[in-house]
Amino acid sequence: MIITFKQTVTPEIQQAFHSKFRNLRKQVFMSGLRMAVVGLDQYRFTDHESEVIEQIISETPSYVQASRNFHPADSTVQLPHSKIGANAFTIMAGPCSVESEDHIRRMAEIARLGGASVLRGGAFKPRTSPYTFQGLGEKGLRYLRKAADENGMDVITEVMDETHVPLVAEYTDVMQIGARNMQNFSLLKAVGKTAIPVALKRGMAASIDDLLNASEYIASNGNTDIILIERGIRTFDHKYTRNTFDVAAVPVLQKLTHYPVIVDPSHAVGFRDLVAPAAYAGTAAGASGIIVEIHDRPEKAVSDGPQALKPDDYLTMAKCIAALRKCMESWED
Amino acid sequence: MIITFKQTVTPEIQQAFHSKFRNLRKQVFMSGLRMAVVGLDQYRFTDHESEVIEQIISETPSYVQASRNFHPADSTVQLPHSKIGANAFTIMAGPCSVESEDHIRRMAEIARLGGASVLRGGAFKPRTSPYTFQGLGEKGLRYLRKAADENGMDVITEVMDETHVPLVAEYTDVMQIGARNMQNFSLLKAVGKTAIPVALKRGMAASIDDLLNASEYIASNGNTDIILIERGIRTFDHKYTRNTFDVAAVPVLQKLTHYPVIVDPSHAVGFRDLVAPAAYAGTAAGASGIIVEIHDRPEKAVSDGPQALKPDDYLTMAKCIAALRKCMESWED
Amino acid sequence: MIITFKQTVTPEIQQAFHSKFRNLRKQVFMSGLRMAVVGLDQYRFTDHESEVIEQIISETPSYVQASRNFHPADSTVQLPHSKIGANAFTIMAGPCSVESEDHIRRMAEIARLGGASVLRGGAFKPRTSPYTFQGLGEKGLRYLRKAADENGMDVITEVMDETHVPLVAEYTDVMQIGARNMQNFSLLKAVGKTAIPVALKRGMAASIDDLLNASEYIASNGNTDIILIERGIRTFDHKYTRNTFDVAAVPVLQKLTHYPVIVDPSHAVGFRDLVAPAAYAGTAAGASGIIVEIHDRPEKAVSDGPQALKPDDYLTMAKCIAALRKCMESWED
Amino acid sequence: MIITFKQTVTPEIQQAFHSKFRNLRKQVFMSGLRMAVVGLDQYRFTDHESEVIEQIISETPSYVQASRNFHPADSTVQLPHSKIGANAFTIMAGPCSVESEDHIRRMAEIARLGGASVLRGGAFKPRTSPYTFQGLGEKGLRYLRKAADENGMDVITEVMDETHVPLVAEYTDVMQIGARNMQNFSLLKAVGKTAIPVALKRGMAASIDDLLNASEYIASNGNTDIILIERGIRTFDHKYTRNTFDVAAVPVLQKLTHYPVIVDPSHAVGFRDLVAPAAYAGTAAGASGIIVEIHDRPEKAVSDGPQALKPDDYLTMAKCIAALRKCMESWED
Repeated sequence: MIITFKQTVTPEIQQAFHSKFRNLRKQVFMSGLRMAVVGLDQYRFTDHESEVIEQIISETPSYVQASRNFHPADSTVQLPHSKIGANAFTIMAGPCSVESEDHIRRMAEIARLGGASVLRGGAFKPRTSPYTFQGLGEKGLRYLRKAADENGMDVITEVMDETHVPLVAEYTDVMQIGARNMQNFSLLKAVGKTAIPVALKRGMAASIDDLLNASEYIASNGNTDIILIERGIRTFDHKYTRNTFDVAAVPVLQKLTHYPVIVDPSHAVGFRDLVAPAAYAGTAAGASGIIVEIHDRPEKAVSDGPQALKPDDYLTMAKCIAALRKCMESWED
Repeated sequence: MIITFKQTVTPEIQQAFHSKFRNLRKQVFMSGLRMAVVGLDQYRFTDHESEVIEQIISETPSYVQASRNFHPADSTVQLPHSKIGANAFTIMAGPCSVESEDHIRRMAEIARLGGASVLRGGAFKPRTSPYTFQGLGEKGLRYLRKAADENGMDVITEVMDETHVPLVAEYTDVMQIGARNMQNFSLLKAVGKTAIPVALKRGMAASIDDLLNASEYIASNGNTDIILIERGIRTFDHKYTRNTFDVAAVPVLQKLTHYPVIVDPSHAVGFRDLVAPAAYAGTAAGASGIIVEIHDRPEKAVSDGPQALKPDDYLTMAKCIAALRKCMESWED
Repeated sequence: MIITFKQTVTPEIQQAFHSKFRNLRKQVFMSGLRMAVVGLDQYRFTDHESEVIEQIISETPSYVQASRNFHPADSTVQLPHSKIGANAFTIMAGPCSVESEDHIRRMAEIARLGGASVLRGGAFKPRTSPYTFQGLGEKGLRYLRKAADENGMDVITEVMDETHVPLVAEYTDVMQIGARNMQNFSLLKAVGKTAIPVALKRGMAASIDDLLNASEYIASNGNTDIILIERGIRTFDHKYTRNTFDVAAVPVLQKLTHYPVIVDPSHAVGFRDLVAPAAYAGTAAGASGIIVEIHDRPEKAVSDGPQALKPDDYLTMAKCIAALRKCMESWED
Repeated sequence: MIITFKQTVTPEIQQAFHSKFRNLRKQVFMSGLRMAVVGLDQYRFTDHESEVIEQIISETPSYVQASRNFHPADSTVQLPHSKIGANAFTIMAGPCSVESEDHIRRMAEIARLGGASVLRGGAFKPRTSPYTFQGLGEKGLRYLRKAADENGMDVITEVMDETHVPLVAEYTDVMQIGARNMQNFSLLKAVGKTAIPVALKRGMAASIDDLLNASEYIASNGNTDIILIERGIRTFDHKYTRNTFDVAAVPVLQKLTHYPVIVDPSHAVGFRDLVAPAAYAGTAAGASGIIVEIHDRPEKAVSDGPQALKPDDYLTMAKCIAALRKCMESWED
């Protein structure tokens, strides 16, 4: 149940409702004038109580905090150098893996040159095979942080493991949950207990509802600084693209949830020459940003080389995206 | 095998090659200086023959005529009022079904107002259940033709049935093959024997290769005026969208084939409020046009009402697409 | 709406109901004491009428004739040499394509030796590429019929094309509709107008409802001698199997429909060494039979060689299936 | 590379090879006379070395320890009361969740009555929504262990979380990794470091290769007591079944790997009345066992009630499976 209070409600009255539902052993969440009570479908309010209630929504999705019913306005995630969501558009760029101190620094410069305000790079890598490069670990985090700081950028990097959360939290501005861990509920709970924004990637076979329910594991633990990432789903056709880029998930999610939605064209398509068209598609569909992989010598990249944009292509793409966004801003007049 | 002749080759010499391969019982196709010989991987040419040969490509895809190897430049389909492909962008719009003479006329006016040069409308409808509306038949074709003519537009309509090909050919400028008939090879052969351009929709579970092989059934029967339509594929997620719009299929197809590729956001997403974002995505990904369903009273439409755009929304979308296209044209400088 | 009449109803009274609904322009179908009225949800019957009515089911699936509500008992398809459905188990076997008079005769002998009572073989082949073998046509049908007759077997063969229906009907006992034509509605209507039993293969991306609705195109044209074939669906995983064998579709379909359900392990898995386990699985899941491809020299087969069982493997498999069936018959005691 | 030594090789010589490759910084695994060297494709052996080598396989799959090349014979997992794999057939049964001490005890008795030697039950539950029952935790483990011990059974239960591994290891004979955690690589490494057998469920969108690569995360950490579970994959059709039961994965996996493969019909189909046919299918396809959910009052179950078999249905199914297995044993003669 979601209760919308009248403007006239006082904090004390809201607190009284809160206590009452807690006494019924219900989980209660607040967002401005709205109160969500999990697992409560019906309730007989006293006349006195009804006076402060504007509206009651009985049927709510299981991802109640993520829902527009609970939080109608777009939510935004504020980082030191970036604002994500609402009318902003954010570019996150960088190599798949942090490879060396020097390399990540050069990639950061290129990323920034294209307008990226967030630097990506993996220090802990979720690889299909245990025998391939697993990332530089803490050393990688250190290099990544330094490269971002030198360029006035924020950091996004993946955390794969509940036990690494405190370590990764020391270095990053956004903790990324990878597609393979989207339903690693222990990890979701762990990042939900931190105050670090979380970027949650859609799993390969995750429905829209699955993704939003996964976000609820983070929110129900106290952290609502959440960004959702569409990165392609697994379908019958993966000969010419690595995944199927579900671009319509952008407006679908924006209808259902207030969290910012960004797209990852690199993983969605998996081949360099398709990344830019996919990025344009995601931008035009209304995404709040993109996250892309870049590399100066992709043929030598330690991971995911085939999908990394070369610097020149990245810069050209960034210019086109800027033009698209400018065009789109004029639509709203 | 694809043979590229030197500029100096004469028609007589080309004809000699042609006859030679025909005598080997091979199918041979010509496109400018290129000759495709189906099923021939190796051949020992005489010195004399080699003199006129610029290049030989031994390994060719089974969809040889569709391939960029055989026809490197974009091909275009010329209709009385529209040019489809290359640098052009074409809007096709109209109701799902032709419902009445008056209705299709009103829809045609709205379609044209938004910049559409092709009027769509179904007279023979492929419905999942035999007990639902199956279309007005020839009467519908007549109304559709008339409405298009009055508005200076071309006609696209579906042909479901080999035996209907001559009838539909009398009324339409483009024969559409629906997703469910994409591998109805008898129908493909039949339209391949006409001189009417064919718009081939990707099947629900058709891979990119399946689509191009299906186009080859049309081309191998003599008709290479082919348009490909991405209209969404069937995946595990169909709660909030009817299909999954595979927007990356646009650049993938453009890489492999010279045929124009357009997108059908209406069927791809299936719900009115998602059509515009999907259309923008398809446009930004580089499609040569869109085909969309419009209806003035979608709740009364005899088929596919939920996905039909209302006139105002269609006109707004058309304006945004025009702006997008203008923006994209500036990229090429 | 499905009306179940009381045992006491007379043909005249049933006819009166029939005429009445026809006058309301409704399609009406009869099966014993049951009458289905398409598109009628509610009706106010007179007291007099109500006296002969046992039960009324208002909500019926769109595939009303296929449904168990309309025809609770298993239906069977009777061929000269085979009874398909109910407690029977039928083996259909033969090569993918009819290759020559001699070859199909030898294959027929092997098929019969393994207990097959129906001989399969394609004379018109739906091939992905137009440049591959398309079948022997009428000559193939003639060889197939002769081989079956010599061995006291029935014939099943594919019809791909509405215009071929009369020709194929001359030679076959069962007309097969291939997966790619499952929603070729013109073809479904055409075979629905014949009196020849139809075996309808599930399309690669066809849901259970799609398959049953497709069967309704046949039934609504008068032909209810229908067999359904599960032959694998297209999913994300097609590296080690050609399709994904949806074995649970067998009990699902048996719950919803009275038509016999058989399985095609050859196309489902696509590789010889997996055919037998898949056939056992389908048998154990309760299928009414299997249809399998056999070939004495699969490496020389003109189509689908990799999935053809060699004679010895076929005979071993057939023996195991016979044992399985015997085991399963004892369950019912 | 996989090296097969001659029978005459001594441990000392094998050790010499081992050291040599370790010095090249390669991971080396041994299995009898076979040695796998990860990431080594070519090597020039001395004549002296070549004398003890029977065979060299240069190209190996990334899941080298799982492969039949490395371990040709079926491997088995020995528990106190069960042997899993090779010619054995194992039934694992129990409720989805441990609900109470009394309930799990009653379920254990029924499970055993049907021939199950392993008791299943969840104490930590991976639920889609954070607001639903998450399991009894350690209390649940205690009840489960006790119920198994009282009935002379082994225990299988899920571990969701790296930090819970030591706790769960205290109580269980087999640690189950759920489908959602199949690529939770940190968890896989953690269970790989224990000596407790691991049952790894295939992820919803996991290819066969993904599953085997995931198993390699366990094996490469030292634990090769691995059981693979096919539990249905996510496809376009989930109206009448929860997932699509990929029964052909059983023979596919058995061809590629030596680990025992069992099937989980409960999760694969998701509805009680389809569980038995799916279980028969899996058995007939050659699985080494089944894992099923049972409940005496499924409508009151705290999780997954709709797919739980009632005791009577379970016992009937168990009897039929026993008959099937007996029938299948006779095939091998």
